[in-house]
Parts: sequence; structure tokens; C-alpha cells
Amino acid sequence: MTRDDARALDRSDPLAAFRDRFALPEGVIYLDGNSLGVLPRAVTPALADTLTRQWGERLIRSWNEGWIEAPQRLGAKIAPLIGAAADEVIVGDTTSTHLFKALVAALRHDPARRTIVSEAGNFPTDLHIAEGAVGCVPGATLKVVARDRLAAALGDDTAVLLLTHVHYKTAERFDLADWSARAHAAGALMLWDLSHSVGAVPIDLAAAGADLAVGCTYKYLNGGPGAPAFLYVARQWQAALANPVSGWMGHAEPFAFTDGYRPAEGMRRWLVGTPSILAMASLEAALDLWNDIDMAQIAAKSAALFAILAEAGAAAGLACVSPADPAQRGSHISFRHRHAYAVTQALIARGVIGDFRAPDVLRLGLTPLYLSHEDVWRAGALLQEVIADEAWRDPAYATRNAVT
Amino acid sequence: MTRDDARALDRSDPLAAFRDRFALPEGVIYLDGNSLGVLPRAVTPALADTLTRQWGERLIRSWNEGWIEAPQRLGAKIAPLIGAAADEVIVGDTTSTHLFKALVAALRHDPARRTIVSEAGNFPTDLHIAEGAVGCVPGATLKVVARDRLAAALGDDTAVLLLTHVHYKTAERFDLADWSARAHAAGALMLWDLSHSVGAVPIDLAAAGADLAVGCTYKYLNGGPGAPAFLYVARQWQAALANPVSGWMGHAEPFAFTDGYRPAEGMRRWLVGTPSILAMASLEAALDLWNDIDMAQIAAKSAALFAILAEAGAAAGLACVSPADPAQRGSHISFRHRHAYAVTQALIARGVIGDFRAPDVLRLGLTPLYLSHEDVWRAGALLQEVIADEAWRDPAYATRNAVT
Repeated sequence: MTRDDARALDRSDPLAAFRDRFALPEGVIYLDGNSLGVLPRAVTPALADTLTRQWGERLIRSWNEGWIEAPQRLGAKIAPLIGAAADEVIVGDTTSTHLFKALVAALRHDPARRTIVSEAGNFPTDLHIAEGAVGCVPGATLKVVARDRLAAALGDDTAVLLLTHVHYKTAERFDLADWSARAHAAGALMLWDLSHSVGAVPIDLAAAGADLAVGCTYKYLNGGPGAPAFLYVARQWQAALANPVSGWMGHAEPFAFTDGYRPAEGMRRWLVGTPSILAMASLEAALDLWNDIDMAQIAAKSAALFAILAEAGAAAGLACVSPADPAQRGSHISFRHRHAYAVTQALIARGVIGDFRAPDVLRLGLTPLYLSHEDVWRAGALLQEVIADEAWRDPAYATRNAVT
Repeated sequence: MTRDDARALDRSDPLAAFRDRFALPEGVIYLDGNSLGVLPRAVTPALADTLTRQWGERLIRSWNEGWIEAPQRLGAKIAPLIGAAADEVIVGDTTSTHLFKALVAALRHDPARRTIVSEAGNFPTDLHIAEGAVGCVPGATLKVVARDRLAAALGDDTAVLLLTHVHYKTAERFDLADWSARAHAAGALMLWDLSHSVGAVPIDLAAAGADLAVGCTYKYLNGGPGAPAFLYVARQWQAALANPVSGWMGHAEPFAFTDGYRPAEGMRRWLVGTPSILAMASLEAALDLWNDIDMAQIAAKSAALFAILAEAGAAAGLACVSPADPAQRGSHISFRHRHAYAVTQALIARGVIGDFRAPDVLRLGLTPLYLSHEDVWRAGALLQEVIADEAWRDPAYATRNAVT
């Protein structure tokens, strides 16, 4: 792959026009959109309107002019990206809080099933929150096993299988339908964490028969730092499952101000308190970009970007820990290197922002909406330059550079 | 009280200069700052910087340039308003989620004490969340009693007394020190909901010996719609109490990415997921206003504004349900009227925004930072005009106007 090859790919890129819809940082090739997505240009005027007109002028009246429905309205905008119906998704709270609510509800669903099964090395908050959820249901336990022992861990006592669709470190992707079917064959519910896959790969929860899902919106969906997360509950479970964090926004009649809690119908029962409207406004503007996007084009471009960095990494002698088959991975590429932390810092010094994941992984995010093939080609060339640097051969390098 | 009297009060008002620091809506007298505070002018440039520079340019690097400490930094700015130390308060999540965490932690603290005591007619989410918390602790119960039976309800089984400092409807205020002492005398923890009092009345949690508190920041603190809430845990309980919603941001080492949860020291353990940085930026700019504010001046002006509306209400023949003694109330005034909903609407039509609380309360918020005495005098005159309207005498009025 030459720079000219990359440029040729850019000229025929059907997604090329989206780049202008983002405020890309000057002098930087940003390969960390899998951690924090870039600012969509539409967010700035949307927030200005939310501040000046909706909050500043309309004030409390804005609650009746669109704010109160924001959790459902944004949920309906995420739904097509995950193969859900508009009334199966709600936005608000954090991914962790949604996970807590969904896990406790799943554990309470069938008294004979009180075990959460999940993967060792899953994104930490999934396991941390699972510990907390187990503490809220008498007799509940958490079984955390290696990926190759997950199938064997499912049994008569399994309430829910909790998996992260795309692994945050390696980019390995579970097959949604296959694992949902395995959970169901064991009589368990299937809960997907889509944080590292929504907006990155095609997702069809309905086809997979998934029961529950949560996901982050500040990565590939570009909703802004700490943007509110989403929760999906398949329609057939909406009446049967109860939100353990029973706040007033999930009440059937929040403005009747009655003492006793009575859950709302549908997804609204999963709300807790009042969501940040500023955060919702930013996310909504970011979500509106996706109206015009074909996920098949995203997947195809992601594969092309991956191939460019995989080739560069191989030329540099790096071990790639992400799957070679695009269908088995998300939209980032990870390399293992003894001095991965220092390599990440050296790349940043050259204007390529990726990130380090302990203990030895360099992770580079591939976001087809705003990265060009040439960007990624240049990042690959700089990666080779960094790895060729003689300094790495000195065993004391990492120690010396640990806090740079 | 004449209009000239009100103008004279404005001329000698030590807080008068703060009015210019808010973007007050045109043509409106806004008496709903107890529900959603007015936009502080400083918020707009702060959010522009957060969007354009911090998110847009610095991107992921901003996490190391101030974002990650935002929950503690904002907590330290709220601390002086509630009589807490800087390291006893944290910001993030919603009031409801903080309540859930604090109540479950309190219920688990002593196995012999598994009852939450609270007040009938407390703000609904407090009671709804208490129901949810009780469901997460085996043997726990919720005892909800009328205000005059609270003292008798405390006993050997009480884990925590949950009270809202200022009542959202009537503005009645509990004595912080007195009720904290009663809870302690019964061997229980004291948890205060300060949502309707922070920024409205002087608060000294340390002097009261309070154990736990939560509060809302989008009312008198003007943090923006759905702004993140705060949690206070007195230092002596910080090591003993555990957060049931054990998310990664509360982990001792969130970026070590280890499977097992290990709570951070101090207040950080109460964090759950990633807070919205846009919401935090807005709130922080709003909090910075309070550096220069003397709460005694707020209290004195609140009392003067109350007196103006109390006189107007009395002249109109309205029943005031808020306490006459300023030390026994918050910073709003409520009147009971058979057609309170329609009265609220008629006031709004005349440019006076207050709100209705079912079934029969007209509630008018008094926010000394941006309301003048003359504003409130004019609101009082318009209130008298509305009440004098012959239409109210028609028994069919409310029915006809129920959906205006």
C-alpha cells in the first residue's frame, strides 16, 4: 500500500463527504475515536440553541417543548443502529447505571436462576457493576470465566449472560446471534454491552433475539465526553422486568407527585432522575448524522483502514492481537509491544493519537466517518518510524519513559 | 408595600449587582428558579471553551487536563454552601441515583437496623427510590409517616432517617441540627435531601452532625436543566460505607483495568460511570458565582421578597401554606387555591412564571440573585389582578380551562 493507493481509495470513498461534518483537530491524526469521538460540527449550534433559547428564554416551559421526551426521542434515533424498534431503547444515565438496572432486573426475573455469567477481561465496569448487582439480590452469584469456557459455564442456574460485543482491548467480536442462542438454549437472558460496537459495526439485536443491551454514545456515536448511555429492553420483557433504581422519571405519572412508586409502561420505567439536557442536546445533534449513513459502507471502510494499519504493523514486526477476519472484530486495531506505553507516547509526540491499554497494548481506533485512508496510511508510516527507533532496544527505555 | 417601597429596597440591595450576571428572559417575571434556575451568563463562554477547545481540539487529552477531577472539583465548590469540607462532596449522577446509593449503603451498615424512616408527602423520588433501596437489602423496610409522627417512628430498627430539608410544595423547613440529633439519639444515620434548600438558605451540615446528604444543582444553583447532583458523606463514614452501584469510576485504579472491584478512598468511591463533561462545565461556571456570595444576604433578601408576595396574597384573600417564620421555610411561597392550575396559567399569560403542584398549590420561587424587589412587587400586583378576575367564581372554570 502506497500513499497514492490510499489517496485513490479516498477518491472513491462513499463516506468521504462526512469528514467535513466534524471539527477535526489541527495537526493531529486522531485514532482514539473508539474512546472519545470527534466533535460533530452540528453540536455547536445545537448547544447554542439549547443554552440561549431553550434554557435562557423558554426556561421551565422547555420541559413541555421537547425536553421531557428526549430520552425516548434519542432512543428512537439509536434504535436503527442496533436493530431495535423505536420503543425498545431509552437514553439517559451512564452505561454503568444502565448495566446495574438491567442486571438486577435479570437476576430477579426467575428465582431459580441467580447467576450472572461473564467473561474474564471484559471491560472492567461490566464486571464491577455485576459484583454490585449480585449484592442486591439474595443468593445471586457472579461467574467470571475465560472466553473459551463461557459456553460450559452456562447452566440451569444462569439468569443472564453478560457479554461485551466487541472487546475494548483486542477488538474481538462475539457473534450476536450465536451467543444469544446459546444463552437462550441454557434458559438464560442475553445482555449485550454494545459500547465498542455501536456505530462501528452493523448490529441487529432483533435478528439475534437479544433480550437486553446497553451502550455508550461517546465513542463511535460522537455524543460528547460522558454523553448519556442507552438501554435496550426487547419488547417481550418490558412489562416483566422492573427497574430496581425506581426514580420519579420512571413513574407512570411523575407529575402526579404521589408517594407510592408505580412504574411507567414501556421503556420509560427505566428512567431514574432528570437527565442532563445539555448532554442530551449534544448527543442528539451527533445522532442526526446517522440518518444518512449506510452501516455496510462503514464496515467496508473500517476493513480497508484496518488493512492499511495491519500492513504497517506487520512491516514493523508488531504482533497484531485483533482478529484478521473483519466479521470477527470491531473497528480498532491493537498491537502488543513490550513498551506499548512508550510507543503510544512516541506516536502522540508525532501527532498520532492512539491509546495504551495495560499492560502491553497499543490501541488505534478506526472511525470511518472522519478518517481518510491517507490519514491512516500516514499513521502507519509514523508507527513504523517509531518502532524502528533504536531507543526501544534499550531495556531501560520503558522505565526511563514511564511518566512522559 | 408600594412600588416605590420596592424600588427603594432595590436601591439598597447588596445583591443587586448579581442580576446582570444572568441572562434573564425578556418580558417575563420568572418565579420558577426553584424548579429550573436562570442561565448564568458565564455558562455560555464556559461551554464554548469546553466544546471548541477541550473536546474539539484537545479531545481525549482533556481527561488529563481537568476532566477526570471534575466530580471532586465541583464537589469542593459546593462544600462551602452546605457546611461541608471540600473532600466530603462529589458531583455526578442524578439526585435519585445518589439517594439510591446512599440509602442502600445506610441500610447495609448495621444488620440490626434495616428500616428507612421518611415523611409522607416527601418529594416523590425520595420515597420511590427508598422503595427501590429497600428491595436491595434483605429484611429492609420503608416506614413513611406524617411529619408529626416522625419522631415516634424512630427506633431500634431505624437505619436511616431520610428527610428533605425544605419541602418542595409548602417550603416548610426542618431544623437540620434538631432532626440530625433525633436520628442519632435513636442510633440511626441522618440523610438530608437538600434539593430545595441549597443556594436558598444557609446550611451547615457539619454543625448539624449530618451523616449523608444529596442535592440538586439545577434549582437555586442554576447549573442547567438536569445538571448533575451532589452527594455528601461525612468523613467519618467514608471508609465504612460502600457504594452498591460499583462502577469503574469509583474503583481505586480505574485505568488499571482489573476484573475485581476495589473501592477508591474517600468520596471517589461514590462515582459510578463517566459523567457528562458538558453538564459539569455548565454547572461549574454556575457554581463559580457563589464565591462572592454571602448566604446571610441571600436569606435576608429572600425574607424581604417573601414578605412582598405574602402581603399581595393576603390582600387577594389567598391562603398561604408556607411558614411565616423565615427560619422555618425555604425560598419559595405557596398559596392554596381551588383553581390553582388555572391561576398558574393565568399568571403565565400575564408574564409571571410560577408553577402548579397538584392538587391545589400555586408555587412561586424567590431567587434573590436575579429577582428585584420590584419584579416581585409587580408579580404580586398581577396575582391580585388574576385572583380578582370574576371568572374564578364560575364553578365550571377549572373544567373549561383544564388543558390550557
